[in-house]
Formats: sequence, structure tokens, C-alpha cells
Amino acid sequence: MMDTSESTASRFLKSALTEESPFQTTAEAVAWLNATGKERRFTVTRIPFEQLGEWSFLAGSGDLVHRSGKFFRVHGVRVHTEFGTLPDWDQPIIDQPEIGILGIIAREIDGVLHLLMQAKMEPGNPFGVQLSPTVQATRSNYTQVHQGSRPLYLDYFFDRSLARVLVDQLQWEQGSAFLGKRNRNIVVEVNDDVPLEENFRWLTLGQIKKLHAQPNLINMDTRTVVACMPLAEARGAAKRDVPRGAATFGEEVLASFRSVRGRLSDDALLNWLTDLKCRVDHRVERVGLADLSGWKQTGEEIAREDGRFFKVIAVNVEADSREVMRWSQPLIAGVDRGVIGLLVSRIDDVLHALIQARAEPGSPDALTLAPTVHCALGYRRRGESDAAPFVDAIENAGPDQIRYSAIQSEEGGRFYRVDSEYRIVEIDNGEKLALPPNYAWVTFRQLQDLLRHGYVSVEARSLLSCLAFT
Amino acid sequence: MMDTSESTASRFLKSALTEESPFQTTAEAVAWLNATGKERRFTVTRIPFEQLGEWSFLAGSGDLVHRSGKFFRVHGVRVHTEFGTLPDWDQPIIDQPEIGILGIIAREIDGVLHLLMQAKMEPGNPFGVQLSPTVQATRSNYTQVHQGSRPLYLDYFFDRSLARVLVDQLQWEQGSAFLGKRNRNIVVEVNDDVPLEENFRWLTLGQIKKLHAQPNLINMDTRTVVACMPLAEARGAAKRDVPRGAATFGEEVLASFRSVRGRLSDDALLNWLTDLKCRVDHRVERVGLADLSGWKQTGEEIAREDGRFFKVIAVNVEADSREVMRWSQPLIAGVDRGVIGLLVSRIDDVLHALIQARAEPGSPDALTLAPTVHCALGYRRRGESDAAPFVDAIENAGPDQIRYSAIQSEEGGRFYRVDSEYRIVEIDNGEKLALPPNYAWVTFRQLQDLLRHGYVSVEARSLLSCLAFT
Repeated sequence: MMDTSESTASRFLKSALTEESPFQTTAEAVAWLNATGKERRFTVTRIPFEQLGEWSFLAGSGDLVHRSGKFFRVHGVRVHTEFGTLPDWDQPIIDQPEIGILGIIAREIDGVLHLLMQAKMEPGNPFGVQLSPTVQATRSNYTQVHQGSRPLYLDYFFDRSLARVLVDQLQWEQGSAFLGKRNRNIVVEVNDDVPLEENFRWLTLGQIKKLHAQPNLINMDTRTVVACMPLAEARGAAKRDVPRGAATFGEEVLASFRSVRGRLSDDALLNWLTDLKCRVDHRVERVGLADLSGWKQTGEEIAREDGRFFKVIAVNVEADSREVMRWSQPLIAGVDRGVIGLLVSRIDDVLHALIQARAEPGSPDALTLAPTVHCALGYRRRGESDAAPFVDAIENAGPDQIRYSAIQSEEGGRFYRVDSEYRIVEIDNGEKLALPPNYAWVTFRQLQDLLRHGYVSVEARSLLSCLAFT
Repeated sequence: MMDTSESTASRFLKSALTEESPFQTTAEAVAWLNATGKERRFTVTRIPFEQLGEWSFLAGSGDLVHRSGKFFRVHGVRVHTEFGTLPDWDQPIIDQPEIGILGIIAREIDGVLHLLMQAKMEPGNPFGVQLSPTVQATRSNYTQVHQGSRPLYLDYFFDRSLARVLVDQLQWEQGSAFLGKRNRNIVVEVNDDVPLEENFRWLTLGQIKKLHAQPNLINMDTRTVVACMPLAEARGAAKRDVPRGAATFGEEVLASFRSVRGRLSDDALLNWLTDLKCRVDHRVERVGLADLSGWKQTGEEIAREDGRFFKVIAVNVEADSREVMRWSQPLIAGVDRGVIGLLVSRIDDVLHALIQARAEPGSPDALTLAPTVHCALGYRRRGESDAAPFVDAIENAGPDQIRYSAIQSEEGGRFYRVDSEYRIVEIDNGEKLALPPNYAWVTFRQLQDLLRHGYVSVEARSLLSCLAFT
């Protein structure tokens, strides 16, 4: 059994507040990522499905599978839900029930936790390399189904004599595209120095947070692990109010992370979610990829007849520095850039965030806690009758309301250039907003508590990761 | 959206500390249950499967199903696990994916919350009636698949103008016998008086807790709902130490419910569980009831060839006061009385409980947090090589160590006279005990926090319910 220091949260917080590092400035980290991206060639070409060497469509179901039976399978689901504006639909989904690992090595340097980050390519990245965790590996990946090289630094996450655990949580990925996919989000602190491999650098959490201001520089895997790092003690924190106008936005967020009370009690929040889960009929039935209604398959893509939402495509990848040098694989391509937005407001002197309970076909238990606006994978159609609530408040926010805004992409190992504008918008008098029954105002402390237990969507975790405090 | 008072926990605690009620003494409540049991005839007869009118075995799979396709289905699972002493086994399992409701109406009377409880028969009860929640109904039950009468008081749980929610949590039932079965555990407080129907009484929580000292008087459904009632604020509690020897056992338990710190931090506890979930291979594959290896089926039962664990049987039920007057159904019968035991110990001046992460075929995510000793459904074989850890410490405890001990039965709607000895045993120097990696000492506050999110097994919840403070 492991143990963690009582002050893990304060150590992460200190790192989040530190932009100075003996290794590089934040600007130098950006330059390093850009230079690494230019240096490394990575050619991704769309190909017809029939050129997917190791992948093929099963007779009968039409499911897209790998010859080894490993990695993942693309099949279909038929969704019936009382949630949201669309009651029934079919869609392809990626079935990958394994638990992968997203791991970051931490080390205290000059009294501040530094995180060992990697400049890493993925075939679906919008461009260049992205800042990635020390290790990101599917189970197939690290148990060598790839026949590729073993991921660097892997032992530090499994051998407790080399490092101790600071964070270790199971987190779900996109429930709109994955059927129950999750990753172990883990941060370990090494006892001794570790060898610094090519394309790896030590950064403070504050530097990483500052890099979130740039478009597409931080990959999704980093964002979800960063969101799991506690910034306030799980227990026993005192309420600390910050008088209006006397604090920066970052300080208000931190005060909300430390706040004991919210607009809803923790019990009331759980009751709200239980009620939704019990009242709302939401069924997901597995169907063959060949049996999807409303979708058409050509030699090059599987897409909706009306062109909305997303497509399944195939790509060939040639890399110069990956575990396997050349391969082909299916990917999910978006149709339109998405919008992921969080409304925040001071309510009873504490900053609250507006979350929604959102039904997703691949989420455990149907519902996941998502940001105020979740319009990813082209699910957005402004002005259409099925437009999401509050999308105008996010998109039409004035510059004085926007606390964060940048384009961020989804995981490039499964998604082909899928990105969204991630935004945090502050409004006045949030408590006066009329809310649909599946929306609730919560403090950041409540959000962090729920996150620990797997309630919070990867898109909401991404937004938490984007929060900077300096 | 509902809200709950900040003082819900203190109101439940006050009720838990109150044995006085204007309606009856605790002794009179016992007499009422016994008298009601004598008055009401309820004849349960074992029958051959072929006499199960509405139930039959499907051709091919051999699964046992109801003609309507509703209620539940008995099929098989094949388990492969690295957890525990048995790596591979087949077993029948009850597949009932609906969310049922276990609801208790609360009302403040003379300043103390009283709970509206029912004297209720179930076909599998060891004898007589048991104290049951106001409402216990499967979804089929309350949506009238039974064609029986609608459960009394049901509206109070769905109409928010009649009552407000105090507790509302989704909780899993026996993962050893059910595939993902769970119930909504809900307590609502009525605004006005409610009509008192026959076989219903108002009791304080303290009276209910005192009745747990009697064998088989409190049904499982009551125990799980009682365990969900908070006894300390979810947040912001101050640490309160009780000097050794200066407090009763009940006061020590309550101090542990309020304790901020435990031997493991909350994060370390979650990390421990994540690590187990990721490291341990545990797979459950669905198979037909006819394809179970190591089981044999006769006209009257499905049992293991070696006679261990449990059986599937069929019964005919004739009742004088149930929604449906006469019916037949399958039930799970145990082979031996079980032992469910919790070791507790003062560690760092706070009472801790020893829990185990236990793999169960029907549990979400494979692992559930179970008591120190979980030997239900005849899984116990003292002295055998696969005996559970700590079973001796529970069974051979001296009278000065036993803090609770009584026979309690599992849910009589699915289990036929399945009961276990539930025990809480206090030991000195628990921190010196050598623990297998899947065991951990936790405070009662930590256990309650995890319970809210569905981590804690129904057997562990039962033991929490048995704790009395007067």
C-alpha cells in the first residue's frame, strides 16, 4: 500500500503558481515544441479502407476490427434517450474496453514539483507535436501487442521502489465516441534523478498551464492528467471568501477550489444526479456497423447521410520516431470545429461553474458531468432548432467576460484533426439564470471532488486543465 | 432541482440518538413485528422448475426467464480473476438491470425525524415479517408489470410537491448473485401528515438501530437505506478525538464519522483502489445457464457438483396480503450460514474499520469495498485452504471484543432463507496487523464518503446500519 503526503495538493499548487524553472522559460518551451515539430516528419495520408492492411470489416456485422483482435473495434450503437433534443439515433462507436495509462513523472527540483513532459506526434494532431505525458500507452501498447519498442519510463509507474504515487485515478474518455474507454491517470514522484531522453523536458505545472493559452500545443492526455492533480486538500479546508474586485480571476478560482459550501450541498448535488439517472430513460443497444440506420459507407468513409457529426476514415501514417515506424489505422474525423464552454459566475461570494448532466452512448451509467456547452465533433449548429442551451452566451461573450479561450484538439491517436474552441466565460448574476433540469451550479471544489470518482467528462477536465493562476 | 438543509446529517444523528417516540417503545415495536408475523399467513413451498407457471428455461442457452421478458433472468457467468483464492469458476447469476426503489418517508415529530416503516413479508424470509422501508419496489413492480396493486405511498417519492429529498443515492446489491442490480436508496421528508396504513409505523432511527440487535427483524432493504443516511456533514467537520476509555463504543464510532484525517489520506485510499483495479485481471463472460461447468441441474435445483456455495431453486408462494396473492418464482438458496465481519481498531486515536477490495462477478468495475470478512452464500469453509483472511479473528473473538453480533438475512424477494452472522469485532493495535494488498484501514467518515458514490458493498452497508449509538 502506498501513501501520499498530506501536502500533495499544496505541492501541486505551488508548482501551478511557478513559471520559473532552471531548465527553460515558458517561451523557450514553446520554441522547443515548435522546433521539435519542424524537425520530425510525420506523414499522414487518407487511404481507402481496403488499404488498411491489418484492419478489415467482419462479414455479417460489418464491424471494423484489427487482425490481432486487439487495439479497438469500431461497431455501431443504437441510442434511445429521453435526454437532449434527439431521441433516437444510430452511430459508430470505438469499443476499446482496456484500461490504458496516462502517466507523468514528477520530481522536486529547487523546492518545486517539475513534470517530465514529452514532445510527441500523433497521426490525428492538427499540426506538429504536442506536449504529452511522460507515458501514454494503451494496454496493448505497453504489453507489446504492437511489436514495437517498449514505451520509455514505463517502469516508474509500476515499480514502487522507483517512485511513489501522488495521483492515481481511473478516468473515462469521450463517451460520444468511445464505449467505456478509460485510462489510468497517474502521477508518480521519483526518488532519484531519471535519465532525460530525447524529446523530454521538465516543466513546472505553471509553465504547462501557461502553454494552454496557445492553440493545440497541449494534448488531451496531458489535459486530463493535469485536471486530476489536486489543488486543494480533499478535506478539512476552511472557507475562504475573496471580496469582489479584490482578486484576480485565478485567485477567485482557487478560492472556489477551497470553498466548503456551494449553492447546493454535496448531498443535494448527488441527489440531483441520482434523480436524473433514475428518471431518464436512456438505452444503448449494440448493432453491427453494417446495420447503422442513417449512415452510408463508401470505400473511404462511413458518414451520416446528412453529413453531420463525424465520420470514420482510414489513414496511412509514416513516422520517423515512433514505436512502430509505419502503420495504417481507422480514425474519427469531425465535420466542424466544436465549442466547449464553461459559464462561471460569483454566487454567494464564491465562483461557481455551470455544469450539465449529459447523456452519452459510451459513458458509464449514461450520464456524465459536462461543461455548460458541449458541442464537439460537429454537434453544433448555431441557429438550428436543436442548438444547445447557453451556446450563445459562450460564443457571443464580450472580451471583458472571456476568462479563457483557445483551440484545443482531441486525442490524435483516435481523432483526426478534431478540435474545439475551449472557452471559459464569466457572467454576472448566474443565480438568476433559468436552468434546464439537467444543469447545476457547482463550486470548483465540488467539481474536483466529483472528478476524483470519475463523474466528470474529459471535455470538462480539459477546461479545468486550462485554468491558470499566474 | 431539489435542495437539502445543511443540517440533514445532524437531524439523522439526533434521530439515531433517540429511542423515545410518542407512538411506541422499542419493545412495543418488537412485539408489533412479532404479532404481525403471527397474524399473517404466508406459505412458501419448494416446487419443481416445471411447475413455475410463468417461468421457463429457454431452448439453447437454458436461461431461466419470465414469460413477460420482465422481472429478471437467471443466466450463467464464467469468471476469470487474479483476485482471491479461486482463479476460475462458473456460476448462475440473476440479471436484473432495472433500477428499483427503496424509499423511506421521514417526518419530524416532536422535533425528531421519524421514519415510516412497514412490517412486510417476503417469500425468502427466514421467518415472519421484517421491518422494511416504506416502499420497496422493482421498476416492473411500480410500473405495474405485476398487474398487482400499486405500492402504497409511491407518489411521495416522485411528486416533489408532497415531500423533499433528504437522501437519494444509487446503490448496488449483492455482486455475487446479481449482475449489476441496483436500487435507488431514497429518503424523503413529507411536508404534512400522511395517512397511516395497516402494517406501517413511525419509528425513530434510534429505535430501528436498536432493533438490529434482534436476529432477522430488519430486512436488507432497510439496512441499505439506513446506511445511506448521513450522520456527519459531508464537509467541513472538525477533527474530534475521543480519549481512550473516556467514551462508549458508539461515541468512538461517531468520532470516527467526524474525523477529518485517517491512516490513509482520501487520495491515497483512491490510489490504492485504482491500482488494484488496474493491476488485477478480472473478466466476466456471459454464458448460458445450460453451459455452466461444474454445475448440475435436476428438476428441482441447479447446484454445484461439489454442493458448495448456493443453489437456484423454485418456490410457490401463497400470501394473504401482497400485491399479487399467489405466485411462483425462482430463488437463490444458500448452502450454509455465512459470516460477515468487520474488524475495527483505534489507530492514531481514531476508530478505523478494516475493509477489503473484493472481486465479484456482478459488481460494476469488478471490485467492491467489502467488510473484513465476507463469507456469504456458503462461501465459508473454516479450516479449508481457501479460508478467507481474518475469519478466525471474527469467529473466535472474545465477548469483550464483540461490539455487535446478530443473524441478519439477505433480501427475501430473491434469496431463500439466506442469512449470515453479522459481527463487528474490536481489536487492539490494528495498525500492526499484516494486511494482504487488497485490505485497508479506513475511518467511518471515509467509508461514508465512498458509500455515497456506490463503492461500498451491500454487506458492508448492512454492518454500518447495525451500528447503534445509544
